[in-house]
Amino acid sequence: MTQPSPALARRMANAIRMLAVDAVETANSGHPGAPMGMADIAEVLWNRHLKHNPADPHWPDRDRFVLSNGHGSMLIYALLHLTGYDLPMSELKAFRQLHSQTPGHPEVGITPGVETTTGPLGQGLANAVGMALAEKQLAAEFNRPGHTVVDHHTYVFLGDGCLMEGISHEACSLAGTLRLSRLIAFYDDNGISIDGHVDGWFTDNTPQRFAAYGWNVIAPVDGHDPVAINAAIQSAKAQAISTEGRPTLICCKTVIGQGSPHKAGTHDVHGAALGKAEVAATRAALGWEAAPFEVPADIAQAWDARTRGATTQAVWEARLTAYRAAHPALAAEFERRMAGELPCAYHPGAAAAFDSIAGQPDAVATRKASQNALSALAPLLPELFGGSADLTGSNLTNFKGCVLAGRDQPGNHLSYGVREFGMAAIMNGVALHGGFIPYGGTFLTFSDYSRNAIRMAALMKLRVVHVFTHDSIGLGEDGPTHQSVEHVPSLRLIPGLDVWRPADGLETAVAWASAIEREDGPSALCLSRQNLPQVVSDAQRAPCIRRGGYVLSDMEGAQAVLIGTGSETHLALAAQAELASHGIATRVVSMPCTNAFDRQDLAYQNNVLPPHLPAVAVEAAHPDFWRKYVGRSGAAIGIASFGESAPAKVLYQHFGITSEAIAAAVRQRVPQRRAEAALA
Amino acid sequence: MTQPSPALARRMANAIRMLAVDAVETANSGHPGAPMGMADIAEVLWNRHLKHNPADPHWPDRDRFVLSNGHGSMLIYALLHLTGYDLPMSELKAFRQLHSQTPGHPEVGITPGVETTTGPLGQGLANAVGMALAEKQLAAEFNRPGHTVVDHHTYVFLGDGCLMEGISHEACSLAGTLRLSRLIAFYDDNGISIDGHVDGWFTDNTPQRFAAYGWNVIAPVDGHDPVAINAAIQSAKAQAISTEGRPTLICCKTVIGQGSPHKAGTHDVHGAALGKAEVAATRAALGWEAAPFEVPADIAQAWDARTRGATTQAVWEARLTAYRAAHPALAAEFERRMAGELPCAYHPGAAAAFDSIAGQPDAVATRKASQNALSALAPLLPELFGGSADLTGSNLTNFKGCVLAGRDQPGNHLSYGVREFGMAAIMNGVALHGGFIPYGGTFLTFSDYSRNAIRMAALMKLRVVHVFTHDSIGLGEDGPTHQSVEHVPSLRLIPGLDVWRPADGLETAVAWASAIEREDGPSALCLSRQNLPQVVSDAQRAPCIRRGGYVLSDMEGAQAVLIGTGSETHLALAAQAELASHGIATRVVSMPCTNAFDRQDLAYQNNVLPPHLPAVAVEAAHPDFWRKYVGRSGAAIGIASFGESAPAKVLYQHFGITSEAIAAAVRQRVPQRRAEAALA
Repeated sequence: MTQPSPALARRMANAIRMLAVDAVETANSGHPGAPMGMADIAEVLWNRHLKHNPADPHWPDRDRFVLSNGHGSMLIYALLHLTGYDLPMSELKAFRQLHSQTPGHPEVGITPGVETTTGPLGQGLANAVGMALAEKQLAAEFNRPGHTVVDHHTYVFLGDGCLMEGISHEACSLAGTLRLSRLIAFYDDNGISIDGHVDGWFTDNTPQRFAAYGWNVIAPVDGHDPVAINAAIQSAKAQAISTEGRPTLICCKTVIGQGSPHKAGTHDVHGAALGKAEVAATRAALGWEAAPFEVPADIAQAWDARTRGATTQAVWEARLTAYRAAHPALAAEFERRMAGELPCAYHPGAAAAFDSIAGQPDAVATRKASQNALSALAPLLPELFGGSADLTGSNLTNFKGCVLAGRDQPGNHLSYGVREFGMAAIMNGVALHGGFIPYGGTFLTFSDYSRNAIRMAALMKLRVVHVFTHDSIGLGEDGPTHQSVEHVPSLRLIPGLDVWRPADGLETAVAWASAIEREDGPSALCLSRQNLPQVVSDAQRAPCIRRGGYVLSDMEGAQAVLIGTGSETHLALAAQAELASHGIATRVVSMPCTNAFDRQDLAYQNNVLPPHLPAVAVEAAHPDFWRKYVGRSGAAIGIASFGESAPAKVLYQHFGITSEAIAAAVRQRVPQRRAEAALA
Repeated sequence: MTQPSPALARRMANAIRMLAVDAVETANSGHPGAPMGMADIAEVLWNRHLKHNPADPHWPDRDRFVLSNGHGSMLIYALLHLTGYDLPMSELKAFRQLHSQTPGHPEVGITPGVETTTGPLGQGLANAVGMALAEKQLAAEFNRPGHTVVDHHTYVFLGDGCLMEGISHEACSLAGTLRLSRLIAFYDDNGISIDGHVDGWFTDNTPQRFAAYGWNVIAPVDGHDPVAINAAIQSAKAQAISTEGRPTLICCKTVIGQGSPHKAGTHDVHGAALGKAEVAATRAALGWEAAPFEVPADIAQAWDARTRGATTQAVWEARLTAYRAAHPALAAEFERRMAGELPCAYHPGAAAAFDSIAGQPDAVATRKASQNALSALAPLLPELFGGSADLTGSNLTNFKGCVLAGRDQPGNHLSYGVREFGMAAIMNGVALHGGFIPYGGTFLTFSDYSRNAIRMAALMKLRVVHVFTHDSIGLGEDGPTHQSVEHVPSLRLIPGLDVWRPADGLETAVAWASAIEREDGPSALCLSRQNLPQVVSDAQRAPCIRRGGYVLSDMEGAQAVLIGTGSETHLALAAQAELASHGIATRVVSMPCTNAFDRQDLAYQNNVLPPHLPAVAVEAAHPDFWRKYVGRSGAAIGIASFGESAPAKVLYQHFGITSEAIAAAVRQRVPQRRAEAALA
């Protein structure tokens, strides 16, 4: 790549600045400060180093670029437009307007070339760690001597905010341990956050902090000096391929809003339009004579990366062709994996697994059932990349034959350490990179720690699977700090997340299969610590289970519907038996995934839950959620307070989550005369 | 304090070890590894340094002790029992049983001497930062030359897990910036976490990391050498009072499960009973001849801290007496503050504020209304200690006359930096310390980041106030990453948390007053970015508002109930007017706090929401929650998908959250003939 003259480089950077200024001004909303401050860094990285092809934003071996300080979205929109992505100027003019390709924060799937959705601070950085992890794992798995098909970098821009967030610690500590040397981060060290100069609340020695993580730190670099920036990137790339290569942090001293004569260096330029007068002053100060949303032809040409991108991709395509010739099976597998398609053997394998699991009548904890399902499915799915936030033996996310991944050890199970939020956001990055279906485990209650990354997976429609074990008071003695009450119902409210709470072995296996087969979003499996009896012994019922709610046990003339999930479904069955012995016929509906059930057509829903029948739901969780299905007149048996520290069986009695309570609630709602008549 | 002989010191530590071993064995559940590993450190700290009085666990100037690695709960239970707190041996024998004072993880309010509830890793450390912050602020505010009434340390034990968690970064970075020198942390560096030896996932240079935060680091210390531990504590205390005193991290090399001949140093001893044989082997190895739950008399006597504690407290009481004489008003204020009582001037002041606010008919964003309320109430409440996670100007948590707190600057508003989780857990620590009512702001969506600390505040029944602004799609252009959908309903499910979503100025002021007056739990105020019209102009309605739900606007012969909250309440009023013009009479219920409404008696609830009337709820949030009040046949108008980036007004139309939609839903549910009859 040719190096532009200093004058040209500056004008190229100024094109970013003015597009950001004008777009924010037009929208009268947005963040000009970061794009203006990082424009020079962006010019050097995107124009001289980034391996990308604007014509094909999904090319597997492209470098990944993440704008972790996502509020500076005009920076990436300007870069994508200028380098030749399918993002016309009309979209930049529609910045932050409904259904434009230029929303307030960058969103993957909306804008070509945006690799991840950012805005919630620190998470883009963790996504980038996930991308670099995926690259390193894939390279180890697929590259062969003389055939390097996985060979790219992950670059990430981040600000003070990202570094203050705790997730930056979790993700960067792990990146250092795993020596993800292809990860190169640029810290926009402008000394300003929204509340003002950071001295009052952020005085970390960041280079020292990252050295403590085992990173390669390059600091300080003048973030407005293209020569210095270029040298830093070259140095980072060179050490990345050294034997002991480490991730790199380039600390760039910058001025927020650089170019704005009166607002640069202040928090006034962080998150608001400059205003007409200051826009004019900025234009004058930068010597920028073009009208808003106009880019001088020579600058446009200098930025255009389409030819170079096509050439770069072609070189790689040639490498892939040679790889296909030398390693046809491996190449086919690589392409399948990057396309996110399940292998042919998967579907018959899953069916066989259902049969086998349904044939095992022993009581089992659903966390153990999950491990059983994994043991059956994972050998069919080399793309599964599992892990746990330091609870492997409790979450049972490992399985027979899984290989522990490590610093220089490719594998399919990673010990993430006690880093729930980092794990979830890294999983998002792994999924975004492609080639893997990541899953990870922790206790359900600690989904609180990772909650926004789960939300982000749902917003980005990523196939990731969360294994949340110890899902209620059923975990027993660890007590209320560890016992979920509100978690299952509140996770169900995250749009696009499928929350499964299976009742036994088969339901757990179907939950896993549904999560794996789902291409448009994440799934959470909420699993018991305690053993549960089998409730479904016929694998033919798997299609019903997939629908999220189904009639598990019906009786002629049912007068009420009992709805159960997970560890309480067997209580509903016990209540049914107890009521039957008193002449009251009921139906038991198992509802392992309300989200899936809600996607069924209304006829199916009404068939399963006849609107005219009183309904009683039971779940060892906050009961309010169930009003959706039982209405105001039904009953929802659950726990609306915090739990207690005691053995599980004691707690179920203490909190009244029992078959007797279910039966009593039904009796209250079934007209006595009908019950008595039935007895007579 | 006298120094025990090495032999006695070792036996004192072994008393802790054996109590932990025997209690876990009896419960057949629990974590012996940490108590055994930290027993020597605990002996030195508790026996030679800790300023406490077992007879009075609430004495204001006691040192605070936090077990951040809360799973090691038997460590603190053993210490409390041995030093003479009201925790008899029978309670240790009932470890982890229902309603014992020895739950699986330490819980404040359950066990005398437990300062905070721990278990969710990293949060105890952040609580300790909050306690040290409160101590420093209070000392600056109340101590006078010759009169030192606030003069204590905060000690915290923590493990690898706490250090891996992101919150440790947030809290410790801020502690370093604020130079909270009275904070002394002990890192139990045993190299083991649940997944095994930490080398594979945690290779931080922790001393270097904490040096980067500006901490005083003492490393390495042999955690089984009382002389070395004692010297480290002495050094930490000495530098704490130096001009540039900093928080101290003492890195103690320890062996997990020290004393267990076959399991020490392995993760087997982390979280499971040793088993009968290994218990016997441990007894033998330690030369411990006493039976389970028996402590030899000389050891019991050596541990007994009651006399020393009484003397220590008496010295302080004498200081307080002198302080009262010299500064009677200040002393009275100090005692009021530490007792958590509101000042006499508060109630009339709040009433006057309600009058004044109700008299302001201008449309106002509720975030601005919150600032108005603060401006009225805060001058009456010097105990308010506010802040924001770097969004002060957006959350409007500051107010006229507030004083920015800083490193050496006492004040009542702190810039927490971009550290939502850290802020929330620090607020918990401030509340636990006493003397303050902490509140803090961020965007509602980022309550996800702090969610478990909000939960912990609820579990601990702490008076903290979360100011969550930008509470829906109404924030507009920042888009779906920032727009809450599931947050209001899912926060409502946290047991004990009061979630307020006020509609206008008066409702906001009442929400603030309710949060401040509430003594048994936290409150979250969910506030709009956008302006909202006044809906209540009569301050006499404040008592209704306090009930959480009330009839805002009634009509004779109402055929349906419209329920609104926050920014949608005025839409319900508009729909009522529109329906009235077509002859349909309705009632509008404003429900700013469903949690408070649910605490009202059933007669009140049914009076506000007559069960026979169809109900339509409107809230710019996930609608499922409202089924609780509208049943299956009512309507809940909201948004069940993610938002979009566009101006707020466009979004309300796009998502159909309009008065027209409300009116249409009512029409569908009101028998036409009645409506037509009314028109005729």
